[in-house]
Amino acid sequence: MKDMLGRQQAIAAETALKMLLDGLPVKLPRLKTLPVEEAPGRICAAEVVSIEDLPAFSRSTVDGYAVKAADTFGATETMPAYLNISKEVFMGEYPSFILKKGDASKIPTGGMLPEGADAVVMFEYVQSVDEQVIEVLRPVAPGENVIQAGEDVKKGERIIYRGQRMRPQDIGACAGIGVTEIRVYERPAVAIISTGDEIVPAGTCPDKGQVRDINSYVLAGMIAASGCEPRRRGIFRDDYGVIRSVIESSLEDSDAIILSGGTSVGTKDMIARIIDDMGSPGVLFHGVSLKPGKPMIGGIIRGIPVFGLPGHPAAVSVCFEIFIEPVLKKLTGLVEKFPWQGRTIVKARLSRNISSSQGREEHVRVMLEERADGLWAVPVLGKSGLITTLVKADGTIVIPLNINGIEQGEMVDVRLF
Amino acid sequence: MKDMLGRQQAIAAETALKMLLDGLPVKLPRLKTLPVEEAPGRICAAEVVSIEDLPAFSRSTVDGYAVKAADTFGATETMPAYLNISKEVFMGEYPSFILKKGDASKIPTGGMLPEGADAVVMFEYVQSVDEQVIEVLRPVAPGENVIQAGEDVKKGERIIYRGQRMRPQDIGACAGIGVTEIRVYERPAVAIISTGDEIVPAGTCPDKGQVRDINSYVLAGMIAASGCEPRRRGIFRDDYGVIRSVIESSLEDSDAIILSGGTSVGTKDMIARIIDDMGSPGVLFHGVSLKPGKPMIGGIIRGIPVFGLPGHPAAVSVCFEIFIEPVLKKLTGLVEKFPWQGRTIVKARLSRNISSSQGREEHVRVMLEERADGLWAVPVLGKSGLITTLVKADGTIVIPLNINGIEQGEMVDVRLF
Repeated sequence: MKDMLGRQQAIAAETALKMLLDGLPVKLPRLKTLPVEEAPGRICAAEVVSIEDLPAFSRSTVDGYAVKAADTFGATETMPAYLNISKEVFMGEYPSFILKKGDASKIPTGGMLPEGADAVVMFEYVQSVDEQVIEVLRPVAPGENVIQAGEDVKKGERIIYRGQRMRPQDIGACAGIGVTEIRVYERPAVAIISTGDEIVPAGTCPDKGQVRDINSYVLAGMIAASGCEPRRRGIFRDDYGVIRSVIESSLEDSDAIILSGGTSVGTKDMIARIIDDMGSPGVLFHGVSLKPGKPMIGGIIRGIPVFGLPGHPAAVSVCFEIFIEPVLKKLTGLVEKFPWQGRTIVKARLSRNISSSQGREEHVRVMLEERADGLWAVPVLGKSGLITTLVKADGTIVIPLNINGIEQGEMVDVRLF
Repeated sequence: MKDMLGRQQAIAAETALKMLLDGLPVKLPRLKTLPVEEAPGRICAAEVVSIEDLPAFSRSTVDGYAVKAADTFGATETMPAYLNISKEVFMGEYPSFILKKGDASKIPTGGMLPEGADAVVMFEYVQSVDEQVIEVLRPVAPGENVIQAGEDVKKGERIIYRGQRMRPQDIGACAGIGVTEIRVYERPAVAIISTGDEIVPAGTCPDKGQVRDINSYVLAGMIAASGCEPRRRGIFRDDYGVIRSVIESSLEDSDAIILSGGTSVGTKDMIARIIDDMGSPGVLFHGVSLKPGKPMIGGIIRGIPVFGLPGHPAAVSVCFEIFIEPVLKKLTGLVEKFPWQGRTIVKARLSRNISSSQGREEHVRVMLEERADGLWAVPVLGKSGLITTLVKADGTIVIPLNINGIEQGEMVDVRLF
C-alpha cells in the first residue's frame, strides 16, 4: 500500500494481520507420536475415537446393595422392603452370579453390578434384620446410583477432535479408553535473527557504543509460550548479503522467521527490500497505525511468514501479540474453540488521563495496584525502548484507532502478560 | 473436627485450605542455576541486582543529528538555526570526539551521543544547506530524543525479585544487564499414588469388573501446569501395609503426596488412619462442604502435605484447584503479586436453572456457547464419575456455600480450564 510518492502507508493493525493470515498457504505441521502422558499442551493431530465402551460394565456409584429396583417400589421406613442377602460383589472382581428377584448383593462404590441388578440402595437406607435379611427403607428407581456401561464414552464416540489442545482431563480420557499414545503436531520452528551493528551477545562485555542483545531472549520466551520452538540464529551485521543469506538458510528449516534489532530507517528499508527480493509476495505491509510498533514489516517468502520487528522491546512485545502470535497459532495446527481465549483480562480503573492520537491504535503498559477502593491500572511511564517498562508492567491496555484517549477513573480492560 | 459421635464433620473449603496452608512449615525449595534462556516460567530464587547502568551511555532514539539543545533554542522554519556538520556517529561505535558549540553530528537510532551533545534533532526537522551546514527548523529540549545512561536500569537497581515467575521480558532484562545465569527454585516433586483394587494401568486390557487408571494422568497434567514435577508411583492395593509403605517411601523424595482412587468409605477411612498413624499432625480435615469433592482428606506428615482425593474425576479436578494448587504454589516458592491471578474468567449467562444445597459449595462444569445474543454457559449434565463431563466442559462455575442456586439467564463467572 503505497502513497503517491511511492512511500509505504501505515495501515490498521487488523488489516495487516488479515493480509498475513490470508496470504499463508494452508498446510499442517509434521506429525509425531507421543506417549499420552507427554502430551499435555500439545495439539492433537488425529481425532481420538473410542473402540470400546467406558465403563465396559455397569458400576455402582455408592457403597450399598445392588438390587432389582422393582423389589423396592413402595418401600418406606414404616413399610420397608425385605430382601435376602445374596453373594457380595468385591472391588475389581467379576460377580459370577445372577441376582434373583428378592435378593440384594453388597457392593462397593465402583463395583460391577451383577447380572439381574439394575440399581443400588445406599447403606444409609438399609437396616440389617439378621445375617440373611435386610430392610430397605426407600425405593430406588431403575438405574439409580449406577453408571451404565458406555455412559462415560460409547464405542465409536469421538472424544478428542483434530486440532484440540490437550488438557489434563483430555489425557485422562485417553487413558481411560486405553489410548496410551497419540498423534500430535510437531511444534513449528521459529528462527530469530538479531540484526544491528551495535548489538553484542548477552554474555559479552559491550564496548562503549554497543548494547547487549535483549530482544532475542524476549522473543524466545514468547515463541515457546505460543507452543512453538524458538531457534536463536545469532546476531548479524546490517548488511544486505549477510542478512539475505541467514534468511535463506532459515527458510530451509523454519516455519516462521523473525528479524529483530536494526532500528534505523535505512536498516528497515533494507530488510523490506531483501524480503521483496527473495520471493513473491514478499512484503505485505511495512508500517502499521500502531504505537509502539509502527515500523513493523510483515511478509511471506515461499509460503513462510517473515516478520521484521522494530527494535524497541515494548514494540517487540506488542507486535508479537498482535501479529506473530495469531500466525504462530495457525502454524501449530490449533483449532481454537473461542478466538478470544488466551490472555487473562481484568477490569481496573485508570489512574490518570492518557491521550492518544486518533488514527493510531495505542498499547499502554500498566501496573496493577490493589487499593482500598478496588483495582487501579497505573500507566508505566518511560520510553518504549526501555525493557524495564515491560518488567514493571503487569499487562497492557489498548486505546483503539478511533479514540483520542481515556480519562482518569474510567474502567479499562487490562490484558495481563 | 469431630461431632459428638466422633465422626469427622464436613468443613468449609476455605477453612480446610487455611488449615493446610497454616500447618505447612515455612521452607523454600532447593536451588538450581539455569542459563537465563532456560528460565521462562521458573521461579527466581535470588533477586537480580544490576551491577551496571543500562544503557551504559546515552543513546539516540531517532535518526537525526546530535546537537547541543541550546544551539537550537528559538529555531523556526523562517528563522532556522544554522549548525556546522561535524563527524558522523556510526552504529555500535564510540564517537571519539567532543561536539562543540554550533556543531551537529549525524547519528542513527541507537547510536551513542558524542560528549558535548545533549539532544537529537530528527531528520525531518533538518534541511541541508550544503555539505558543511544544516538548518534546524525546530528547537529541541535538553534530553529530547535521547535515552540517558542508566535510564532503563540504574547500577544497584533490583530488576527481579525473589519468588518472581520469570516472564519473557524478565529474561530479556537479565540479558540486557549481562546476567546469563540465574538461580531458580527446583520444581517440587509431587508423588501420585493410585489406589483401588479395581484400577489397572492404562496400557492393559481390563478384565470385567476392572477399569483403567484415569486420575493419575489428569493429576500429572495439573501438577505440571502448577510448576511442579509429577511422579506417578503406580497403582497399589487397598491395603494398610501396602499403602503405608508407598507413602513412607514417597516421603523421602517428594515435596507433596497425592493419593487417588480408592472411592469407598472403607478405603477413605483407612487412608485417613494411615496418615494419622504416620505422624503429627496427620489428618487436618476429612470431609468438606463441597460438591463434587466432599470426601476429601487433607493432612500433613513430617511437614509434607498429603492429600487423599475422592475417586471421581470431576472431584479430582475440583479438589485439585481448591486445595492442591494453592499448596503446590506455596511449595514452588512463588510470591504472587495478585492471588487472583491464574485462571481466566469469562462472563456468560446461565442457560438453565441450577439448584444447590445451602451449606455446600458447588462446582458445576459448563460448556460455553457463543449465541447471537452473547456468551452462554451450558451446564454439562452427567455424574461426576464421568471423565467426559470434564472433557466436554470449558470451565466451571461456583455456587457459594450460602446460595440455593442460580437462575436461568443470570450472569455467571466461568473459570476456564
